[in-house]
Amino acid sequence: MNVALIVQKFGGSSLATPEHIRRVARIIAETKNSGNQVVAVVSAMSGETDRLLKLAREISEEARERELDALAATGEQASAALMAMALEDLGVPARSFLGLQLPLLTDEQHTRARIIKLPTERLKKTLDQDIVPVVAGFQGVNANGDITTLGRGGSDTTAVALAAALKADACEIHSDVDGVYTADPAICPQARHLRRITYGEMLEMADMGAKILQIRSVELARKFKVPLLIKSSFGSDKCTWIVEEEINMESAVISGIILSRNEAKLSVIRVPDRPGVAYRILAPLAEAAINVDMIIQNASIDGCTDFTFTVPKTDLKKTRELVEQVITEIGAQELRTDDDIAKVSAVGLGIKNCPGVAARMFKALAGEGINIQMISTSDIRISCVIEAKYGELAVRVLHDAFELEKRNNERTNNFSQ
Amino acid sequence: MNVALIVQKFGGSSLATPEHIRRVARIIAETKNSGNQVVAVVSAMSGETDRLLKLAREISEEARERELDALAATGEQASAALMAMALEDLGVPARSFLGLQLPLLTDEQHTRARIIKLPTERLKKTLDQDIVPVVAGFQGVNANGDITTLGRGGSDTTAVALAAALKADACEIHSDVDGVYTADPAICPQARHLRRITYGEMLEMADMGAKILQIRSVELARKFKVPLLIKSSFGSDKCTWIVEEEINMESAVISGIILSRNEAKLSVIRVPDRPGVAYRILAPLAEAAINVDMIIQNASIDGCTDFTFTVPKTDLKKTRELVEQVITEIGAQELRTDDDIAKVSAVGLGIKNCPGVAARMFKALAGEGINIQMISTSDIRISCVIEAKYGELAVRVLHDAFELEKRNNERTNNFSQ
Repeated sequence: MNVALIVQKFGGSSLATPEHIRRVARIIAETKNSGNQVVAVVSAMSGETDRLLKLAREISEEARERELDALAATGEQASAALMAMALEDLGVPARSFLGLQLPLLTDEQHTRARIIKLPTERLKKTLDQDIVPVVAGFQGVNANGDITTLGRGGSDTTAVALAAALKADACEIHSDVDGVYTADPAICPQARHLRRITYGEMLEMADMGAKILQIRSVELARKFKVPLLIKSSFGSDKCTWIVEEEINMESAVISGIILSRNEAKLSVIRVPDRPGVAYRILAPLAEAAINVDMIIQNASIDGCTDFTFTVPKTDLKKTRELVEQVITEIGAQELRTDDDIAKVSAVGLGIKNCPGVAARMFKALAGEGINIQMISTSDIRISCVIEAKYGELAVRVLHDAFELEKRNNERTNNFSQ
Repeated sequence: MNVALIVQKFGGSSLATPEHIRRVARIIAETKNSGNQVVAVVSAMSGETDRLLKLAREISEEARERELDALAATGEQASAALMAMALEDLGVPARSFLGLQLPLLTDEQHTRARIIKLPTERLKKTLDQDIVPVVAGFQGVNANGDITTLGRGGSDTTAVALAAALKADACEIHSDVDGVYTADPAICPQARHLRRITYGEMLEMADMGAKILQIRSVELARKFKVPLLIKSSFGSDKCTWIVEEEINMESAVISGIILSRNEAKLSVIRVPDRPGVAYRILAPLAEAAINVDMIIQNASIDGCTDFTFTVPKTDLKKTRELVEQVITEIGAQELRTDDDIAKVSAVGLGIKNCPGVAARMFKALAGEGINIQMISTSDIRISCVIEAKYGELAVRVLHDAFELEKRNNERTNNFSQ
């Protein structure tokens, strides 16, 4: 058997207590003892990052991001050391590494840094000595030598970046979920587990709020063709492979229904329909690094139009302030905001080839009297903004409408697991 | 007024909660706002190191020291970041630095590393920008790039090393004690606060169990002539300067009485009195890094002698095992051990010039019926091992015998504070 190199990443809930850490160590040891090389990547123990950030808030409401990063990075550093100890206790030689020690070089953006360079000399040397490197996820170092972090969920990105740099055979993401489902099982009991999904579909799903892994890690995995495997470290046999698109996937129509409640809607009413208006409204938001999601501009009536867009709920207050400043400048009538909304999306590779999908979706929602406030589409996604209270109902209705409970809807899984 | 450069070190009890950290930040801000340059050095928040090491023990009884260091170092890293935040919240620009970032270069000895090199470029650049560097104490990095720690209390050594490297005007050690006393006030209510003491006296006192600062930091301060100031961060006005010896100090006889309960006694009974016997007994202990303190060999009777020494109580079990292995080899009769002992010491520069001091000490102990089991002396210290239960009584008796409650016993303090 050929030796495979596997990057295994473990989330905070899999590392909640010393007992959890010992259990994860057994998973890593088994993988290694089956003849594989393993690089482990760990998050902070569950609750630890929140504990640290609470301390920071008790000290200063506006802490410098450089210091927040130095503080938060201790969580992963501690888990990495503890995991190395747990592995050695099982007789598996292991060494912990900080981002600073590889070094995982990032840009200057504290709390949301992007990886610039990831040298592998130290890890390869460690692997060659038959030692398991345990890398502290989430963290890096910038050109000044300051500690940076990659944002919430950044350990996923650390894992995929390592898998790409080391040309690993797979990157496993272990957490408390055993894969991707056709809908949130808590909302839709018929939701079915998917054994396989493409990077593109996963990107649309993660974007829609599926709390499985950091979206950037999927982008990175697609870019470097790193096969991703979503697994549970709590004993489930199920898992989901995230892989490249294949040619013959036309049998798949919709892979899943996703509900998101993280956004708020803003409508600028009766904007004079002149060139540059959209830019005038959105430029200050871009400068303030506010992530605008859906954007809709209605057809012009009497030379005026309504301009509607969504932003993360947490940015609503700031967005409102910024937009109110330009309202009079651009001669608009008023600004309306609404954070009592939900976004329900159908995601699937089949959408681009099946013109009937959108129609089926709108019909199903209408059948329950659910009003659609906004629509946006991509090649593999259709999203509707609806009133918040209808969110769960919409998921169940669409899951039924696309018959996602049926297994023959899924593509064959060619992957050996 | 000239700008003074002051290194201020704060112990864990001064950093126990966010409120404590904010209070310490005000102390640093005041020092800076009085026109000084300040470098702050912080320990882990009180209880944090114990919490981390407890996690380690729950995972492995024999964790690799490299990983224990990586784990423990997170405590100081977190405090440094939090302290930088607290300072900035007061409008004082501040940046945290890890040992790894300076870099504070040490040897390879994990958990008890010694400092090899301490570059100051980064700190000087920071000070030149009118920013307070907040250095994580206790930690460094070895030539491999692995995190090392300097041992319990190592933040004191970090502070003194920084003061030496930066040629600081003083190094302040802030903790929950406001200085050095002639005896432990908890044992001896007449104990008097000392405004001044020499490095040499402090070394003897620290060695005897005064829990004020890491002994190595005093050695380092003496070597580089760094004036040390022991202060409380809990609002006391008192403090103690630790400084060089002066010529005219003959008025001082005894500075303090110290009680230590950390040692155990081992006696090898009836050892044939041949050359090399002491070496045969002690060499295995040196190899095991067991710190032998007092050593006494009685006069030879019938060609046999008794060989008695003390080791830290925590090393008693291991020491017994090692010594039992050589007992028969060297033809000794038996090994006796006793951990029910205390060591009471009188420390003072005057001892070397006052032959009557030892006599006065023995007489005072005899007057209370306290039997002396072992005696050892240095130029500035006389120590007696006695039965443990007499420890506190011995301190009070000696404090009285040397009239330490009288202020005129103390040298004049030339230091402006």
